[in-house]
Amino acid sequence: MKKIINNPELVVEDMLTGMVAAHPDYVRKLENATALVRANSPVEGKVALVSGGGSGHEPSHGGYVGKGMLDGAVAGAVFTSPTPDQVYEAIKAVDSGNGVLLVIKNYTGDVMNFEMAKDMAEMEGIQVSTVVVNDDVAVENSTYTAGRRGIAGTVFIHKLAGAKAETGASLEEVTRVAEKVIDNVRSMGMSISSCIVPAAGKPNFTLAENEMEIGMGIHGEPGTHREEIKTSDEITEHLVNKILEDMHLEDGTEVAVMVNGLCSTPLMELYIVNKKVNEMLTEKGIKIHKTFVGEFMTSLEMAGFSVTLLKLDDELKELLDAPADTPALRVL
Amino acid sequence: MKKIINNPELVVEDMLTGMVAAHPDYVRKLENATALVRANSPVEGKVALVSGGGSGHEPSHGGYVGKGMLDGAVAGAVFTSPTPDQVYEAIKAVDSGNGVLLVIKNYTGDVMNFEMAKDMAEMEGIQVSTVVVNDDVAVENSTYTAGRRGIAGTVFIHKLAGAKAETGASLEEVTRVAEKVIDNVRSMGMSISSCIVPAAGKPNFTLAENEMEIGMGIHGEPGTHREEIKTSDEITEHLVNKILEDMHLEDGTEVAVMVNGLCSTPLMELYIVNKKVNEMLTEKGIKIHKTFVGEFMTSLEMAGFSVTLLKLDDELKELLDAPADTPALRVL
Repeated sequence: MKKIINNPELVVEDMLTGMVAAHPDYVRKLENATALVRANSPVEGKVALVSGGGSGHEPSHGGYVGKGMLDGAVAGAVFTSPTPDQVYEAIKAVDSGNGVLLVIKNYTGDVMNFEMAKDMAEMEGIQVSTVVVNDDVAVENSTYTAGRRGIAGTVFIHKLAGAKAETGASLEEVTRVAEKVIDNVRSMGMSISSCIVPAAGKPNFTLAENEMEIGMGIHGEPGTHREEIKTSDEITEHLVNKILEDMHLEDGTEVAVMVNGLCSTPLMELYIVNKKVNEMLTEKGIKIHKTFVGEFMTSLEMAGFSVTLLKLDDELKELLDAPADTPALRVL
Repeated sequence: MKKIINNPELVVEDMLTGMVAAHPDYVRKLENATALVRANSPVEGKVALVSGGGSGHEPSHGGYVGKGMLDGAVAGAVFTSPTPDQVYEAIKAVDSGNGVLLVIKNYTGDVMNFEMAKDMAEMEGIQVSTVVVNDDVAVENSTYTAGRRGIAGTVFIHKLAGAKAETGASLEEVTRVAEKVIDNVRSMGMSISSCIVPAAGKPNFTLAENEMEIGMGIHGEPGTHREEIKTSDEITEHLVNKILEDMHLEDGTEVAVMVNGLCSTPLMELYIVNKKVNEMLTEKGIKIHKTFVGEFMTSLEMAGFSVTLLKLDDELKELLDAPADTPALRVL
């Protein structure tokens, strides 16, 4: 295993220390949980947003803690849900009395532990609501998940519900926006190489030379099929068509696009993917309001990418364009 | 070769098309050169900055075209200097009559071709100055380079000289700032895996399992030595000490830090590196004004990282903190 780490058991602690060292104006680490919260938490007068999950998807989710997005991000062990206690501590640290929205990616462990944390916080009199992101159209049910998986589209929930919270909206309103974004966001990915969970020390799946897996999840969960690698245009066409089949966008609809790298795919290749995404949507009369190309929801050192489309209306557009200031995403 | 591309001969064209499709408010592509310039070029009333070099280092340099940084970025073939003609076309497209600064990374081909472009532009009456970035302390002279190589520190020249240009300063003043940043910036990197130039189709060097190369360049040029991979803390300590030996920072000096990923190193690991950088500098009484952790100057799919330190004074601090709005770097 070739990794630039100190100790497989300490990767999350070391990473969080490095994040706080890099961004002390943005985040602080809780003493009693592997969680980052805004440096000035709790922020008075607003609903707080907490997300998180297993580590290994950076900048998700700690990189999105800051003005206009999250208030807290709980970091479990690599590819492992944080415990209810950790989530509970984050909820307590960010609640200013206006309630807390938990943004959960749809994995069985995450849903269970975040829901338990909700119960614990409610027993303390904290108002908590939850939303579950399930944007991955590749497969229904897979390793770790009942229903569809939550992947890169989650970042749009952080961005738009976070912007709504920043306006001083109620927990009910912020939750409504989060649910609306979930209803309107779809993703699908592919991979050409595996990743190594530090504590395991070996790749968690293997792909043959020249083989790719279509629809693979961000922990290496099975996708729809494996086949010989094709051109970027062909792969992208397949993914975008799968997403569009699920979305039924009408001519003239506006969308936001995210081309997300899983880690080891060069930015050059992500832009080549975006070329085709743009061509396809333009041909179909779909209007692209904004495009994000980069690494937003990674999978350790996996190579591959996902495409996410978010259908917009005037409300969602305004929230997407609202300012955000976080270590990983800044919108002016 | 497993790459998400269409045709090795078209990667630069496809990438530029994808970049313009993603960021039409920021950049447009020149018709007669593989170069991106600001969408509103030439920007009246300011000195223009042009950089570039071989492709494969994205987001360098096209990602830094925008307010507060570059006016133009010329994209050569992968790891190959752009031709003088291409640089010349970019100069013409961005000059508003206030002159153009060329920011060149110190590689023999780049220096020669950018200097030729300068001569061509001057014959047309355009004022042009050049600076050559040589921040890599690893080795003197190597493949492609006489003297020290220019690597990730280049992004600080874009940022600070770009901020100076935005104030309406003269070409002489903008050039002075660029030279001052070059005098005060030092970097060093390491690698644990190779990269594949698309047109070559095979790795351009090999490292044994468990082997790393210290001081390797961003095209795989030899570094100082190879050895068995160590812990993140040990590797970081070596690199930072090498940089500090070259900088002679006094107690109380302020610096900016950049921990730059070459591509296939997870953000988690870059933050683990930053933990140690921060510890070391803090121990030595060096004050960290700002830290950047991410991918700023990559090397196709190479795994590894570099550390850059920029020594600051009041002038440089103000320019570092000035707003920037580009696809790859936003400072609020």
